[in-house]
Amino acid sequence: MAIIHAEHLKSLVVKLFETVDVDPVIARRAADHLVEANLAGVDSHGVMRMPDYIEQILVGGLARTDKIEVLRDFAAVALWDGHLTIGQYMAWLATEKAIEKAAAFGIGMVSARHSGHIGRLGEYAAQMANAGYIGYVTANLQGFGQRVAPFGGKYARLGTNPHAWGVPTGGVPMVIDMSTSVSAEGRIRVKMRRGETLPQNWLLDNQGNPTTNPADLYGPPHGALLTTGGHKGYGLSLVAEALAGLLNGGGYPRNTKDVLSLENGFAVIAIHIDAFGPLDEFQTKAAELMNYMKATPPADGVAEVMYPNEPETRERARRLANGIPIEDESWNLIVATANKLNIPVPEVQ
Amino acid sequence: MAIIHAEHLKSLVVKLFETVDVDPVIARRAADHLVEANLAGVDSHGVMRMPDYIEQILVGGLARTDKIEVLRDFAAVALWDGHLTIGQYMAWLATEKAIEKAAAFGIGMVSARHSGHIGRLGEYAAQMANAGYIGYVTANLQGFGQRVAPFGGKYARLGTNPHAWGVPTGGVPMVIDMSTSVSAEGRIRVKMRRGETLPQNWLLDNQGNPTTNPADLYGPPHGALLTTGGHKGYGLSLVAEALAGLLNGGGYPRNTKDVLSLENGFAVIAIHIDAFGPLDEFQTKAAELMNYMKATPPADGVAEVMYPNEPETRERARRLANGIPIEDESWNLIVATANKLNIPVPEVQ
Repeated sequence: MAIIHAEHLKSLVVKLFETVDVDPVIARRAADHLVEANLAGVDSHGVMRMPDYIEQILVGGLARTDKIEVLRDFAAVALWDGHLTIGQYMAWLATEKAIEKAAAFGIGMVSARHSGHIGRLGEYAAQMANAGYIGYVTANLQGFGQRVAPFGGKYARLGTNPHAWGVPTGGVPMVIDMSTSVSAEGRIRVKMRRGETLPQNWLLDNQGNPTTNPADLYGPPHGALLTTGGHKGYGLSLVAEALAGLLNGGGYPRNTKDVLSLENGFAVIAIHIDAFGPLDEFQTKAAELMNYMKATPPADGVAEVMYPNEPETRERARRLANGIPIEDESWNLIVATANKLNIPVPEVQ
Repeated sequence: MAIIHAEHLKSLVVKLFETVDVDPVIARRAADHLVEANLAGVDSHGVMRMPDYIEQILVGGLARTDKIEVLRDFAAVALWDGHLTIGQYMAWLATEKAIEKAAAFGIGMVSARHSGHIGRLGEYAAQMANAGYIGYVTANLQGFGQRVAPFGGKYARLGTNPHAWGVPTGGVPMVIDMSTSVSAEGRIRVKMRRGETLPQNWLLDNQGNPTTNPADLYGPPHGALLTTGGHKGYGLSLVAEALAGLLNGGGYPRNTKDVLSLENGFAVIAIHIDAFGPLDEFQTKAAELMNYMKATPPADGVAEVMYPNEPETRERARRLANGIPIEDESWNLIVATANKLNIPVPEVQ
């Protein structure tokens, strides 16, 4: 396990991007996002993705500059095509646009196709909440990347199709960020790299049989994650396809390409709280609600009830103080990428 | 079990409402909604609610006429207060308003407080989908009606706080309608009336201990349903509180009143597909996606993979042909209400 300070990690990520000629503004935005994901403890959407991103840039699959094309812009909504602009930058910019539209119309929305991988959706939900808006984000994989079985099905047809919501509270925002599968794909990858097994009822192997081996998700041929809450996760997964795949024309996963794509479609909606009533009153009540939840006596065997984003906020404080742990396989791949680009790697514990 | 034809049931519901002086337009709208819920097989949100509604009207807790007050109306959003207007009418009207705003701005939203019980959210999702819009609806209970424990908590603090989405396909729309608890409250009530027991991990009794007896939800003192998908359902439940309780000022459930309230806050969002691209192209792709899901080979022990709304659509056809079955306890309560109002009750099988 490598332990590295957040600022050192961010500098390394920026350097990696800039060495392959990524626009500096985009490089810094993406680095911020990736390291924030690690700080929150969501390692699956953090710097472990860098070797893939760099490879995609080098083969021309991911753009070095802002290639965003505004296909439609009508009142409170917009339709964008990213032409594989780096996703953490593109989704941040789309979120800013949704906020701008919500400020003007009370609610605003951007649906975007052909973005690079946008990472942890909770970041955009928090971006809206921190600006005083209720935010919603969902994403799909465009045209490939099947890893989740429809409810009752034997084989994968859908992506993990997450939904995230952000709600301002005046302090740390409430952030809900959930895959519609029993687990995010990246979490399975982390468990595989750590040599862990999965709980029952998470995964089917490539024959459609239950398995606890995370490697069965990848195969090849690949297996299939189950949906969270059965038909509920299945339904919400299809909502992600509708908003982030069908609405923008980017398409939904088919089985014609068997790769784990880093290409996302996404949709972001911002709701202007001030259009309904004073933001400070809303925030006071939202904070009261969080505290009320937190004051619930815990069930047997549970230490305390938490509000959404509380575990991530605590982890962030710990990792800011003590450094970010990165498991060896991920760190070694990052070091190999840095070595290939002749970039010095910072000291780690 | 009483079996009654949909049209006869609808006439009875209209007559019940009109006899207690409910506005005829509101009476017909609510009757349509309730019987449609029964046709879809969602008996928990159907005519079994009528005795409660009539009682609420007679004691002055539910309005006989349209009492909707528009508190704010700004560009793409509006804030309404229902002053306990009958919910199935009010939410239908708010949905029409969200559609009207989405037609003008690309996306539209209404958040409303102090509505009568709005019933089955899927109806409003379908209303938007049938008009060519992607629709989203969520609801809370305003100020009371705690029946769901926060994730890790011992006692109920939240309502069942459902989310529903509708997506047009050109034919039968895709409709997702889910409680954020493991089950809707009304479904527990149906199981209690049918003398059934619950699966494990659905319910805590009033001491916070697991139980399979549906009556333990009601007590008194009442127990607590668990959230679907653990922290995921908990998070989505808080989103419902934010959009349907905090945003409109109607409030979130507290434990100061121990009743099963029929008062809802709700929020409805409509997205104009034509603002992003041609509706017919979207619908063609949405229908393809549904068919692609349906073609997934089923897992062992599963007859077929279905798309969201497929079970409800089949049940609707069956019940239109064969009549709507209503369990004796619910039917007897309806008959007692009709007798009290001197309304003749139609023949049942």
